[in-house]
Amino acid sequence: MGNRARIVVQSRRLMNTHGAQAIGTTQIAEALSISPGNLYYHFKNKEQIVLAIFEELEQEFRSVISTDVTPPISPQRFAEFYSRSLAVSWRYRFFFGGLLHLLRKDEVLAYRYRDLQSWALGLLEGIARQVAADGNLQKPRGKDGFRSLALNTWLIWSNWVRHIQISHENHDVSYEDISDGVNQIFEVLAPYLTAEFHRAARRALTKDLSSASKEDLDL
Amino acid sequence: MGNRARIVVQSRRLMNTHGAQAIGTTQIAEALSISPGNLYYHFKNKEQIVLAIFEELEQEFRSVISTDVTPPISPQRFAEFYSRSLAVSWRYRFFFGGLLHLLRKDEVLAYRYRDLQSWALGLLEGIARQVAADGNLQKPRGKDGFRSLALNTWLIWSNWVRHIQISHENHDVSYEDISDGVNQIFEVLAPYLTAEFHRAARRALTKDLSSASKEDLDL
Repeated sequence: MGNRARIVVQSRRLMNTHGAQAIGTTQIAEALSISPGNLYYHFKNKEQIVLAIFEELEQEFRSVISTDVTPPISPQRFAEFYSRSLAVSWRYRFFFGGLLHLLRKDEVLAYRYRDLQSWALGLLEGIARQVAADGNLQKPRGKDGFRSLALNTWLIWSNWVRHIQISHENHDVSYEDISDGVNQIFEVLAPYLTAEFHRAARRALTKDLSSASKEDLDL
Repeated sequence: MGNRARIVVQSRRLMNTHGAQAIGTTQIAEALSISPGNLYYHFKNKEQIVLAIFEELEQEFRSVISTDVTPPISPQRFAEFYSRSLAVSWRYRFFFGGLLHLLRKDEVLAYRYRDLQSWALGLLEGIARQVAADGNLQKPRGKDGFRSLALNTWLIWSNWVRHIQISHENHDVSYEDISDGVNQIFEVLAPYLTAEFHRAARRALTKDLSSASKEDLDL
């Protein structure tokens, strides 16, 4: 692994542990035993490092929710949307904790995050519509029903990590907290699922969560 | 209004506009045309001001969700939980945008916020159980169904403001954004409501949102 990649990985780890605001380029260079000059050769400042980390987050998230979505959507695939996407938010947990502050400091990042959010909302709505078209989900009430469900899914997905950081005295998030979050996101669509699809998806979710280990997730 | 109260109101307004992190005791004293010494007589530091603001938030929020809850809960009262509580979060919007950072900086505030959260989760669960006992809500699936609904309500309530701040280029929240948020929170319990109660609550909600004006809310 080259120094650029090492800087990105180490920065994510340090920020996950201490929060983005507590970590600067000095600590990152020290943790990697490289000179500040070497770090500045790859990244002009901390904002550029955060942007590079966001690019990895974005790539992983897009891949998790847009891979293998050819209809019909199976209960297994449906469950994976939840378990895999929340695992991504856990791996980049510093980002979701201090999100507004990070976006206030970097307009490019703010723009790109909003872009990812719009894309995700469209895709999440499409998934719900597809499960309905497959006959496994009852159409929600109201003309924007699907949009509204997609937004609630997104709200819980993007805020779960901060909720846990706030709820724990040490502000840390363990992998066990993620499985609780997966269940919370699942609850948004659950009341609309047919009994059979609900049971199968719930079973797949439980299996997914127990088989995944922390080691698989924290690269 | 005495200087202590003026400091609290002015600080909330400045922080709502610029974010908590951009505002210090110097700006607050300047905006009020009082001397730094006068400010320090009332508050030792910014954290103490934030804590005083939180105390007002807490009082308003507790009053909104625990007043007039004698069963049966009418559709009108049910709707008011949503519209009034989110209006509180709007009035203190700086707080929800930078929540984790504020709690990291003050352990007393962190403790008190978690305390409020536990209390709110218990109360929100109680409301859902009461509406079910009144015959107007279908029991959710799973043994922790009510708890899970209460938590999703709370997650959307406490994160809506940040979601809007993130979604807007200027990071500001208008009162119109709040009515969208009320609808999103309502969607959490909506699928469980009987058709009649759902219709009546939705009607009350629309009426509530159109009658409330920004002037009523920003004291």
